[in-house]
Amino acid sequence: MTASDRSLADAILAGDRRAASKLLSRVEQSDPAVLPDLQRLYRAGGKAVVLGITGPPGAGKSTTADQLIAHFRRRAQRVAVLAVDPSSPFTGGAVLGDRVRMGRHAEDPGVWIRSMAARGRLGGLAPASGDAVTILDALGVDVILIETVGIGQSEIDIASHADTVILLQTAHGGDGVQLVKAGVLEIADILVVNKADAPGTDRMAAGLAEMAAGVHRPDGWSIPVVKLEADKGGGMPDLAAAIDAHLAYCRANPAVGLALRRRQIRARLLVLAEANLRRAILRQDDPRLESAIDAVVARSLDPHALAARLCDQTPLDQTEC
Amino acid sequence: MTASDRSLADAILAGDRRAASKLLSRVEQSDPAVLPDLQRLYRAGGKAVVLGITGPPGAGKSTTADQLIAHFRRRAQRVAVLAVDPSSPFTGGAVLGDRVRMGRHAEDPGVWIRSMAARGRLGGLAPASGDAVTILDALGVDVILIETVGIGQSEIDIASHADTVILLQTAHGGDGVQLVKAGVLEIADILVVNKADAPGTDRMAAGLAEMAAGVHRPDGWSIPVVKLEADKGGGMPDLAAAIDAHLAYCRANPAVGLALRRRQIRARLLVLAEANLRRAILRQDDPRLESAIDAVVARSLDPHALAARLCDQTPLDQTEC
Repeated sequence: MTASDRSLADAILAGDRRAASKLLSRVEQSDPAVLPDLQRLYRAGGKAVVLGITGPPGAGKSTTADQLIAHFRRRAQRVAVLAVDPSSPFTGGAVLGDRVRMGRHAEDPGVWIRSMAARGRLGGLAPASGDAVTILDALGVDVILIETVGIGQSEIDIASHADTVILLQTAHGGDGVQLVKAGVLEIADILVVNKADAPGTDRMAAGLAEMAAGVHRPDGWSIPVVKLEADKGGGMPDLAAAIDAHLAYCRANPAVGLALRRRQIRARLLVLAEANLRRAILRQDDPRLESAIDAVVARSLDPHALAARLCDQTPLDQTEC
Repeated sequence: MTASDRSLADAILAGDRRAASKLLSRVEQSDPAVLPDLQRLYRAGGKAVVLGITGPPGAGKSTTADQLIAHFRRRAQRVAVLAVDPSSPFTGGAVLGDRVRMGRHAEDPGVWIRSMAARGRLGGLAPASGDAVTILDALGVDVILIETVGIGQSEIDIASHADTVILLQTAHGGDGVQLVKAGVLEIADILVVNKADAPGTDRMAAGLAEMAAGVHRPDGWSIPVVKLEADKGGGMPDLAAAIDAHLAYCRANPAVGLALRRRQIRARLLVLAEANLRRAILRQDDPRLESAIDAVVARSLDPHALAARLCDQTPLDQTEC
């Protein structure tokens, strides 16, 4: 039986990697016909662990992802990497080269690597990345690594998917501390100083640890600081232990885990609902909206009143749980 | 009678500048109690002309705005300037100094200058800037200049307010042509090469004119290129003539004018509806939404289905025009 004989969702739940690739491609093309498959997969899923890796260009995100793949493979876990390609001129970077670097895992059937375009949002995640997580989770992947450049929106976006957010920095350039100041301590669960052979690493790690100690997160988690030399594998056991500790902490504290899920879903809803809203407003094919816009042109209706109607929450009353 | 004795809207419609400032401050604080006043003012308005001035830092936007103020004042028109302060570290710039430069008009009761913070969107307009236009228009201002740094979102945002968009550039640095390539020709109605004594100006102006001639806009407008020395006033009659020509073109072609209004309203709706949506999703006080989120956590509901309910368009059926 091939994917064409049954729904893509069925095939994916049976472990068909090609079906997963096919559905993801259709998701990236914004094909609305995929919704029933995605809904089925979402309801069947929830087993995979999602790790977010973020940080400025050159911090070694792909090298770290590569080491983490090897680590999880040694545990016989299936791993997927979603690398969000910065399509913005502000970020640039050797993304293709980085992909090639992870090529040593390309032949491993337990590893799944996919790049996704960020589509115009500065460093932000692709809107489809949430669906990618749904698909990979349903496919039976154990660990999903999402790698994204840490600029602008991405730290917030990544928190809408990742169970554990790893923020990578280096002592090079010295702007790591500045990045951390910008409020990311609220979402970074593990701070990493990569390229730990660089001068200033100890000072930076100490500074970050001091800063992290001053943060009192609502979830009670104490943010660890890990020194890493990802290209040589140095410090990887510490990073792996920190990841395990954070995941265990969330599992051991059901209220923390629930708050995390709710935060993820809220952030995801925002992305999906905004996309719906944008489509509804821009598509120009709803005569009700077009005549309402004409009423605003004629000033018999005002923009606030019309906007309020576009986001009316009445349909929530129909929610069946 | 003071503003406290009647509604702010009444006072503003009677020409009370203090009432206008007061309402705008409340708008900037996102006070929901201002909505009835804004709705009243919007329905009563529609007379002011709105000019958008955008361009990269250092292009001379404030100097040009200053010259345009003087130009419109010579015609005895009342003028307002809304300067959107870039609050982003990416833009920076001598915004305060620029404000001071326009200080020569500070004592003129026919001139109204206000800075607004961009609030986290890269170079984008303040969400309140649309309401500021509504208020100034109702106050009886004839020309509203909106000045914003041309990075990222701002060229699109400015098109949601301005009747005529003026894109300023200089031959300095030589990245002007690159900026134009990024699709802004679809929204820039007048291209200006400022600091026209700089070497390379003629070549740049010729290049822009050639590029503009290759653009076939749906509204049929041919984009003029104006050489300007805003600091000395050189070229100002050409810029003023280009503005008059564009406004006259929109008035002479009702379909063009209507399409412009509809585009402005659509963009405005997007900003307002997104803000509503964000508030609704993040505020955590609607038990219907909170229980729906719990259903998504439990995977008996999926994020797409819930997002669709958050943007249901059914309430449009209630639109009274």
